[in-house]
Amino acid sequence: MPLPDFLAALAHAPAAVHVLSDPDTLAIYACDETPKRCTPRAVAFPRAHAEVLELVRLANAYRIPLVARGAGSGNVGGALPAPDSVVVSFECMDAILEFDPDNRLMVVEAGVVTERIEQTARSRGLMYPPDPGSAPYCRIGGNLAMNAAGPRAVKYGTTRDYVLGLRAVTGAGAEIRTGCRTTKGVTGYDLTRLLVGSEGTLALITEATLRLIPAPRALITLRACYNSNDAALAACARVMTQPVIPCALEFMDRLSIEAVRSQLPDHGLPQGTQALLIIEADGETHDLPRQIAALTNTLTDSGLIELREAHDAEETRTLWRARKSLSHAVKQIAPLKINEDIVVPIMRLSEMVAFLEAQARGYQLPIVSFGHAGNGNLHVNLMVRPDDAREMARARACLLEIFEKTLALGGTLSGEHGIGTEKREFLPLEIAPPALDLMRGLKALFDPNGILNPGKLLPETG
Amino acid sequence: MPLPDFLAALAHAPAAVHVLSDPDTLAIYACDETPKRCTPRAVAFPRAHAEVLELVRLANAYRIPLVARGAGSGNVGGALPAPDSVVVSFECMDAILEFDPDNRLMVVEAGVVTERIEQTARSRGLMYPPDPGSAPYCRIGGNLAMNAAGPRAVKYGTTRDYVLGLRAVTGAGAEIRTGCRTTKGVTGYDLTRLLVGSEGTLALITEATLRLIPAPRALITLRACYNSNDAALAACARVMTQPVIPCALEFMDRLSIEAVRSQLPDHGLPQGTQALLIIEADGETHDLPRQIAALTNTLTDSGLIELREAHDAEETRTLWRARKSLSHAVKQIAPLKINEDIVVPIMRLSEMVAFLEAQARGYQLPIVSFGHAGNGNLHVNLMVRPDDAREMARARACLLEIFEKTLALGGTLSGEHGIGTEKREFLPLEIAPPALDLMRGLKALFDPNGILNPGKLLPETG
Repeated sequence: MPLPDFLAALAHAPAAVHVLSDPDTLAIYACDETPKRCTPRAVAFPRAHAEVLELVRLANAYRIPLVARGAGSGNVGGALPAPDSVVVSFECMDAILEFDPDNRLMVVEAGVVTERIEQTARSRGLMYPPDPGSAPYCRIGGNLAMNAAGPRAVKYGTTRDYVLGLRAVTGAGAEIRTGCRTTKGVTGYDLTRLLVGSEGTLALITEATLRLIPAPRALITLRACYNSNDAALAACARVMTQPVIPCALEFMDRLSIEAVRSQLPDHGLPQGTQALLIIEADGETHDLPRQIAALTNTLTDSGLIELREAHDAEETRTLWRARKSLSHAVKQIAPLKINEDIVVPIMRLSEMVAFLEAQARGYQLPIVSFGHAGNGNLHVNLMVRPDDAREMARARACLLEIFEKTLALGGTLSGEHGIGTEKREFLPLEIAPPALDLMRGLKALFDPNGILNPGKLLPETG
Repeated sequence: MPLPDFLAALAHAPAAVHVLSDPDTLAIYACDETPKRCTPRAVAFPRAHAEVLELVRLANAYRIPLVARGAGSGNVGGALPAPDSVVVSFECMDAILEFDPDNRLMVVEAGVVTERIEQTARSRGLMYPPDPGSAPYCRIGGNLAMNAAGPRAVKYGTTRDYVLGLRAVTGAGAEIRTGCRTTKGVTGYDLTRLLVGSEGTLALITEATLRLIPAPRALITLRACYNSNDAALAACARVMTQPVIPCALEFMDRLSIEAVRSQLPDHGLPQGTQALLIIEADGETHDLPRQIAALTNTLTDSGLIELREAHDAEETRTLWRARKSLSHAVKQIAPLKINEDIVVPIMRLSEMVAFLEAQARGYQLPIVSFGHAGNGNLHVNLMVRPDDAREMARARACLLEIFEKTLALGGTLSGEHGIGTEKREFLPLEIAPPALDLMRGLKALFDPNGILNPGKLLPETG
């Protein structure tokens, strides 16, 4: 592979692209949030759209695989370097190019940190709703690539719902602008939403025009502790069939509670808690009491142990503490977590969680489940020791059954993490050959030389 | 063209498709809401997905163009028969296959009338928000093909935002299922939103899984009459920069008012009215007074002549009367209306409407503008006499300048009507060659023989 030629050409291109290939840098960019590592050949740091264009054109000429990277905070290997690839890190493209509060839009470069978008919007009474857990450090380009979401998706939807248009360079090196700057627009095929969620395999997104909405003035957090998974999920089903849509509705199962109890001395959970819901509602200050009354009524049943309400930042932190500590607490159960992201219809959550408990018993594996129950989205964590080959084999068999059950319940394999390297072999369980063939056709159309993020999203052929 | 062979093959196919080709039937299906006519060779009435599949496969074998049709209520020729084509009318596929109020979804065949979806949802306290003016008779397949919208798009978005998944037959005859049944899902490329708005050129949609939301319990209608376009549009800008999002925000310009005054004796508009806004707000009953107060405050300025509030169905009808009579009233100005559907950023609406008035003067053409101002979406009607060649030439020159101004203001050529036959030649004004090339590539991928709705959406090549 003529990498030196590629690098020399880049250095001499009109828009000279900054590239590093020292071992320390390569080590930093060799991984994302999956446990895998793959050292890239180099890391490019474009500073502008024109440099991305240069990179893609030269990568085509020299057949160099390019792997786009925001903050590397993904869970499925989307930003994991492909073998012999050059990572394209967008961290130097972090300008907010335009903020137009009157027309409620923002134009950002792909490397802008998500939280900064929200903070900037808030400075003028607006809101950018998508709120992945990684918002303080992840970058909007990664959010767009994966169609990221977060707790607020229950009420506000996902990244896709807030993108008006994109600027991008396709794998073939074509510069495109998609979509528009207005909330309505139906000219031509919807290339915008085709690129959102395409995991860096069709085009490199360089800029996005984002839609903003008025920020709610008040927020209330409730935490409801239950004596069983079933009681919590029955309450969740009741919440999602009455008219007040919470802006977040999070669930923690029995094993999540156990993990937090054992790791967090000041967990603040009442005795007997086996599952909990965290519910947030937002809106006008004067309207919150009505929402709280409706939610409280809905959350209350014989399985409810405690219902608490937080009205200020300190109380809110207290109620979220167990949920926020979960990622760390879970890691103490076993060295490796196989972190899944299934979705089932909300009315089937209870059946799914019961199935997961049965799987945990049957396969002798801790399975910790929690997540965005208001969307039916569960983060299912199989806790394993990677050096125990038998346990890994059991985990594998167990996982396949979990996916099959998910689909049998009318669900989907991934709600917000995406496919990447980690789930591509399972994609055919959900997507039948004709649709998969079309997806391969789309890949060939946008990226005929296959230089963008090879080995991701689409299953291997043959 | 071996049409008889095609029809014979259809008649003998395992799923025999009902086809008519008598002159009376052909005359009915020769047009849509554009003034054009083109008599098809036959009209097929599939009753099930399997019959659509049969149709497409045989159409490929015999190279017969197929034009999908819902109710033929489109404005841009999307359902206008192509020369020598067979119309595929979905009116016999009008089953609601599943209504799951607990999981807030409905699965419908493509021929279901849009209003029936909304009425069925309402029967269980739910809502299907997209509300094109043709909702009482248009069919969901047409709405999906065009990404239809309506007044409520200001608050609730467009058809695209309520589609979870689709079942379809591509132009190549591949049966696909796209998307999922849950509110989150990121497995593979977003084929769902690629098909929505593709105007029947990529695939025939046979079924859709639609997302429903809780219905608001109360609705209030306000009508604000102003002494000038500028005063009305300044109020519109103020409404859309304060936090209460109306569920509809309609505008009528000076010439719209004149048309209504001259055609509708009981128009009910106070003297001096030169423009008006109709504003609807919805939500909880007890929250409406707050919304009304905020909107009233925002709507009031020195140009306001009258502000009226409707609280029941009768009063609401009264306030909407002028707006609803507009389509009919406008037709009296001249025999032909060239009906455009531009969008500009809301803060530029005033500039756009002033430009349209100047165009009307300069080109000596009545131009009536009204529409969904809360989305920046204006229906611009050039009133012309089609037998006056000079006037038609003036209209043509005028139209091109309107499109150029729209784009110069950061707008888009169509907000909800689509491209069809009527705007395809203008598409290159907005979409640059690399994106157009990709769209042509998508067309070739989904419909390699070009049998689906030829001559629509994409501009002619060469």
